[in-house]
Amino acid sequence: MRRAIELAKLGTGFVNPNPLVGAVIVKDGKIIGEGFHERYGELHAERNALKNCTVSPIGADMFVTLEPCCHYGKNPPCTEAVIESGIKKVYVGSSDPNPLVAGNGIQILHDNGIEVIEGFLQKECDEINDIFFHFITTGTPYVIMKAASTADGKIASYSGDSKWITNGKSRAHSHLIRKRVSAILAGVNTVIADDPMLNCRTEIPSNPIRIICDSQLRIPLDSKILQTAKDIPTYIATISQNQQKLSAITDSGANILQTNAVENRVDLQDLMTILGRKKIDSVLIEGGGEINAGALKSGIVNKFCLYIAPKLIGADGKNSIAPLGINLVNDAVKLKNPQITNFDDDILIEYEVM
Amino acid sequence: MRRAIELAKLGTGFVNPNPLVGAVIVKDGKIIGEGFHERYGELHAERNALKNCTVSPIGADMFVTLEPCCHYGKNPPCTEAVIESGIKKVYVGSSDPNPLVAGNGIQILHDNGIEVIEGFLQKECDEINDIFFHFITTGTPYVIMKAASTADGKIASYSGDSKWITNGKSRAHSHLIRKRVSAILAGVNTVIADDPMLNCRTEIPSNPIRIICDSQLRIPLDSKILQTAKDIPTYIATISQNQQKLSAITDSGANILQTNAVENRVDLQDLMTILGRKKIDSVLIEGGGEINAGALKSGIVNKFCLYIAPKLIGADGKNSIAPLGINLVNDAVKLKNPQITNFDDDILIEYEVM
Repeated sequence: MRRAIELAKLGTGFVNPNPLVGAVIVKDGKIIGEGFHERYGELHAERNALKNCTVSPIGADMFVTLEPCCHYGKNPPCTEAVIESGIKKVYVGSSDPNPLVAGNGIQILHDNGIEVIEGFLQKECDEINDIFFHFITTGTPYVIMKAASTADGKIASYSGDSKWITNGKSRAHSHLIRKRVSAILAGVNTVIADDPMLNCRTEIPSNPIRIICDSQLRIPLDSKILQTAKDIPTYIATISQNQQKLSAITDSGANILQTNAVENRVDLQDLMTILGRKKIDSVLIEGGGEINAGALKSGIVNKFCLYIAPKLIGADGKNSIAPLGINLVNDAVKLKNPQITNFDDDILIEYEVM
Repeated sequence: MRRAIELAKLGTGFVNPNPLVGAVIVKDGKIIGEGFHERYGELHAERNALKNCTVSPIGADMFVTLEPCCHYGKNPPCTEAVIESGIKKVYVGSSDPNPLVAGNGIQILHDNGIEVIEGFLQKECDEINDIFFHFITTGTPYVIMKAASTADGKIASYSGDSKWITNGKSRAHSHLIRKRVSAILAGVNTVIADDPMLNCRTEIPSNPIRIICDSQLRIPLDSKILQTAKDIPTYIATISQNQQKLSAITDSGANILQTNAVENRVDLQDLMTILGRKKIDSVLIEGGGEINAGALKSGIVNKFCLYIAPKLIGADGKNSIAPLGINLVNDAVKLKNPQITNFDDDILIEYEVM
């Protein structure tokens, strides 16, 4: 099953909004076939593993990280393929919370005389699909907020210098987070201050769409984001009705998302609903303090990835999160289950937001 | 040797400014005696281990975390005791940087026909005596700065509420840090805001002295610190010459430390020199943002212990470090070698300050 998990991860960035799934087929103690869900719309892991079998799978065991599907989507159900193959036993990691599956996949295998072991390395299998589980049950994107700060919580000096807070390994890793998601979201202030590309620069890059929160349409027309909007899908979320600006932006190749207003700004909850309808299953917020504070206040954040550099800048530095107006510590935004990874002397803490 | 390190740590809080030392004597594969330096002025580890031997140590091996001393201090040299005991082989962890020892202890054992293995588990042995090694080579205290902040670097809400940022386990652990040091230092603002006791509340408490940095003598006469100054040694570091206030403070039982002035404030470097002369080998700074910033700017901090709670408060919270006036990230205060300990969802990062 650990091999199946490794395989599943190879699909990262290419299967959204589908889950990451890996499958391994074992006969007489040897792996005779393995596969994973490689790309949205293409074969599922189980069918890939069967296709790759070097000997007949009749009487073999299958290890699959997620309950096999039993409904017709882009492909016919995997349960059919498993039953036809002659596999005699299936070890399943995660149950599929998709209401179209939700135990039916396992039931169908049972009914066809296949022994099923459920919940095998379930925790490990669940972990690779936090995005899918959230999206399939809520219909809104799984939201990851990222910050790179000093040990005293600053993301730049008072003058705005931020190159570089974190080291090269941390920055390379942050592109792996970009690769996991369907969309990268930033505030217009970040575009004005840093003029970033917000693309995914990994060895095999995926192409998350880019979303800029720009309530009053202040985005510069010569920004890299708009200049590359014909190449990388780009959305400007706004509440502005300024037709001249709207036309200039659509002319650049970017799309407009009109949202509800909250306190004269883009309503981030409404934006997430709109993105969910567009099958955007995950959003990475890579903004500054303002968009981070807005996202926390609107309650849309599921995960907070905090890179901490071994540096101190002092209170005059720029904050990772703008004012939240919290009077009592008891009312602070609560996080839980910190997972720690070291990148030399940088530390990544991945929190779940409560 | 691991047992000797454990034993050494039992002296924590009671031997300053001496080093923590543990010793174990082994004969025919069995421990026949063990001991540690228990209290300043009393027997050293080697002599305690020899005293506790259940059978004759003739021909036995000794494991000792620090090079045995060879000079007359409060006690005659340990090398003499080892030679007289008939021990045939000594495993030494750390070398003693004390210029009165510095290799001579090992040489004397050699010269008396005892086999010496140097640097045995040296890293682990060195780690328990960071305070001693610093103090014996510089003559000034080893300075630990402690902060307890949210994941966005805040130590209190905008209204000053700070109860509690960190959890009970973290707060209990912070008392173990207090136990390691000879003195606890806070700024007068902390006294005015929180009226703390700054004592060590562990099962077997040690009694670090208390030092308040109070350039203009603003400390309230009814503060807990001054009210208990007759019971716990208390020093007020100041540049004020206000005789009336000075008298009121000395009447309370606290002592005055007059220091040089820097920018009309207590010169912390000068204060450390004064404390070093008083044989204060270690200081824990438990202040607010102002004293932390002052300590960092004066370059006296050796170690930064940062407890990070799974909470976010936003930019309107109080900062762990007051403004440092750093323009470029490249000029930030640099930290290194983060050591991580988890207390449930709180994280302690212990950094060395570069």
